[in-house]
Amino acid sequence: MMATARERLVVIGGDAGGMAAAAQARRLRPDLEIVAFERGTRTSYAACGIPFFVGGEIDSLDRLVARTPEEFRERNDIEVHLRHDVTAIDVGGRTIEVCDLESAATRTVGFDQLVIGTGARPLRPPLPGIDGPGIYGVQTLDDAQRLVGVAETSRCEDVVVVGGGYIGLEMAEAFCHRGAKVTVLDAAPQVMRTLDADMAELVVASMRSRDIDVRTGVVITGFEPGSVLTDEGPVPADIVVLGMGVTPNSEIAGDAGLELGVRNAIRVDRRQRTSIEGVWAAGDCCESFHRVTGAPTHIALGTVANRQARVAGINLAGGYATFPGVLGSAVTKICTTEVGRTGLTEWEATAAGFDTVVGKVTSSTRAGYYPGAEQLVVKLVAERGSGRLLGGQIVGGASAAKRIDTVATALWAGMRVDELVDLDLSYAPPFSPVWEAVALAARQAARG
Amino acid sequence: MMATARERLVVIGGDAGGMAAAAQARRLRPDLEIVAFERGTRTSYAACGIPFFVGGEIDSLDRLVARTPEEFRERNDIEVHLRHDVTAIDVGGRTIEVCDLESAATRTVGFDQLVIGTGARPLRPPLPGIDGPGIYGVQTLDDAQRLVGVAETSRCEDVVVVGGGYIGLEMAEAFCHRGAKVTVLDAAPQVMRTLDADMAELVVASMRSRDIDVRTGVVITGFEPGSVLTDEGPVPADIVVLGMGVTPNSEIAGDAGLELGVRNAIRVDRRQRTSIEGVWAAGDCCESFHRVTGAPTHIALGTVANRQARVAGINLAGGYATFPGVLGSAVTKICTTEVGRTGLTEWEATAAGFDTVVGKVTSSTRAGYYPGAEQLVVKLVAERGSGRLLGGQIVGGASAAKRIDTVATALWAGMRVDELVDLDLSYAPPFSPVWEAVALAARQAARG
Repeated sequence: MMATARERLVVIGGDAGGMAAAAQARRLRPDLEIVAFERGTRTSYAACGIPFFVGGEIDSLDRLVARTPEEFRERNDIEVHLRHDVTAIDVGGRTIEVCDLESAATRTVGFDQLVIGTGARPLRPPLPGIDGPGIYGVQTLDDAQRLVGVAETSRCEDVVVVGGGYIGLEMAEAFCHRGAKVTVLDAAPQVMRTLDADMAELVVASMRSRDIDVRTGVVITGFEPGSVLTDEGPVPADIVVLGMGVTPNSEIAGDAGLELGVRNAIRVDRRQRTSIEGVWAAGDCCESFHRVTGAPTHIALGTVANRQARVAGINLAGGYATFPGVLGSAVTKICTTEVGRTGLTEWEATAAGFDTVVGKVTSSTRAGYYPGAEQLVVKLVAERGSGRLLGGQIVGGASAAKRIDTVATALWAGMRVDELVDLDLSYAPPFSPVWEAVALAARQAARG
Repeated sequence: MMATARERLVVIGGDAGGMAAAAQARRLRPDLEIVAFERGTRTSYAACGIPFFVGGEIDSLDRLVARTPEEFRERNDIEVHLRHDVTAIDVGGRTIEVCDLESAATRTVGFDQLVIGTGARPLRPPLPGIDGPGIYGVQTLDDAQRLVGVAETSRCEDVVVVGGGYIGLEMAEAFCHRGAKVTVLDAAPQVMRTLDADMAELVVASMRSRDIDVRTGVVITGFEPGSVLTDEGPVPADIVVLGMGVTPNSEIAGDAGLELGVRNAIRVDRRQRTSIEGVWAAGDCCESFHRVTGAPTHIALGTVANRQARVAGINLAGGYATFPGVLGSAVTKICTTEVGRTGLTEWEATAAGFDTVVGKVTSSTRAGYYPGAEQLVVKLVAERGSGRLLGGQIVGGASAAKRIDTVATALWAGMRVDELVDLDLSYAPPFSPVWEAVALAARQAARG
């Protein structure tokens, strides 16, 4: 009797998109052979923890690793090869080409099913000098290690962050924590374009109170050793951090003939299937769709990657699951200010064609009389006429931001703002005023 | 030309139920004459802040007053008479009888419409000695003032709290804060019957770690000066605080012929109408209905009072609003442990006839690697088969409890637990692990 070959699942990328799919598939299919290839030196790490490592709140990068290759082998029977770069996919021949970065040897590995979880990388626009020394995009733990190594061993007085998105602002705070003089440069008229300008302004005020220099509408023209060149003159910079967004690592998928979509992200359907049978994608490398607009979108967030991976894993194992879309829910903490957002901002809603009404209130994180109460601003956006909730934003002190989950849940369920007004939310003086700010904002929006 | 008499709204009770209704009515009907009578010495106070005054976190009771009689007069054109006790309602003659407690003079006041917001009072079961000295039920700010006066001027080493509900446990913590040796006695087999026993046990463990003696299954047989008598022997008590629940102040309503319902609470319909035309009720004195079971219920919470009052105010002013029911959402903080709950517990669901599945997970308030991460236990209860969410409970460290609002919102919207799994909740390391505990519990419940 001849041994029959086991069905083989190959995974490209050792972080959430690929590995969570693989782990999910393993739970349903103990019989699968699962082999994963990761270009870097670590698996399943929390990239979102990097700013806190740079800022010194977390002392070891190893703590950001959720599961090591050894753990994947022992607990999940998944073979992970680190420092292995997958350079090509042959969808017809059902093989990939993989290069061992240590030996530079290349080999071909066959697959029955394939999960692409190649992630994304920081955007590096083709500006003069952008590939010079001292200019860092931070995506992997190796990037973080390198950056902190430089910060610790060389002059790090002036730090310039280019781009005012989440990662940019979190990195700005991290270097502020380290005692550097930090400047944030953004070409747009506002930072945090995932918020409306009026809400982003609250975040900027908090940063400025911490002596972070935030400059908007500044065009970067290039980089020189020791400075960032702008249309307003050079800005001194011992270290430059790029926070201009990310672009999907979809080149090998595109070269293999897989359909790409928004921002060159790999196109997937609701089951995380790519355009090629038996080839799946999950995480920052692939598209998603927005639950409010219905439009395809690309959102590089760990939560989305994990959820997509779970769906991919169930489906490739023969089960059935669909990805229900994203709201772009996110929280962050910049200095002492917390920020939460979900769904569409006012400008996004307008751009998507919605006529909007807005409810915006300034309230308090606790009962006004309770010690430690801090300001909390909530803005809700709804469709004019129908009152359908479209999105929400929160900026405030400690414990403010996570209230966005209430808005996200209401949005997920398709609720109208008038339904939010009477919602039975919890209350006690240490946690909120008797009317939650979210309900007050809903009431204002419901008045139209 | 003769002056026409203005339509007169009379309000009985100067706290949330009555005054929020009056303020809402005023916004819609500038023409109304509004007169309110309050038996005590203050209006619109936050009774839920009392334990924090007793515990010393809040230094003045005046801070608990949201709006004074002067403010009601100036801002809302509402005339409030303090220390005026309404002793009877004549629904046929459209009058009330009111006694000025200072002069003991009684007069009759006519009304066109009437709002009853008489609240509730602590239960005092007819046990020997219960009306003796040193035994306090705490409902009004005057009660709180008296209690703290006693605690400050006489021996207050041994404090016994009778009854382990929210108020009882909050008062236990408050006296623990003051340095007293505190014992909680509850006749039931568990404290916090708004939680399931397994969840309440976590709260008790936290209290015991703070040297609060929590004893369940103890039958109180009476009170003597200096001790509480129980079936397990006497317990030393310089001060006794009653936390055995509350009973609606519905006597004058009942005497006037208004229909009463659950626990003698005044029966109201969805518009907060009592059984008599033009007579409304809101707050702790009246019934509500449970959104999950549909059954009438009596929940004495400030959030419910304010929401009912808003509905009553709109309707009596000629508008249209319906009260959408309660989930029993609540949060509290006992020592360092936060507690949140909404909807039905497992035992409540079973009692209501539901066949249930449960998801229960132990997770973390922040990413495991982020400093300050604390334990968080989430329990979700769903209907077997349909997977419909029925309720949730959370017990954990700092920032744990308010997550219950996510569950409350999902419950409000009628979501199933499998829909909760993929919900796009916000994430960042200082705020939660990448999978929120609520989503993990939902996943477990969805497996059924």
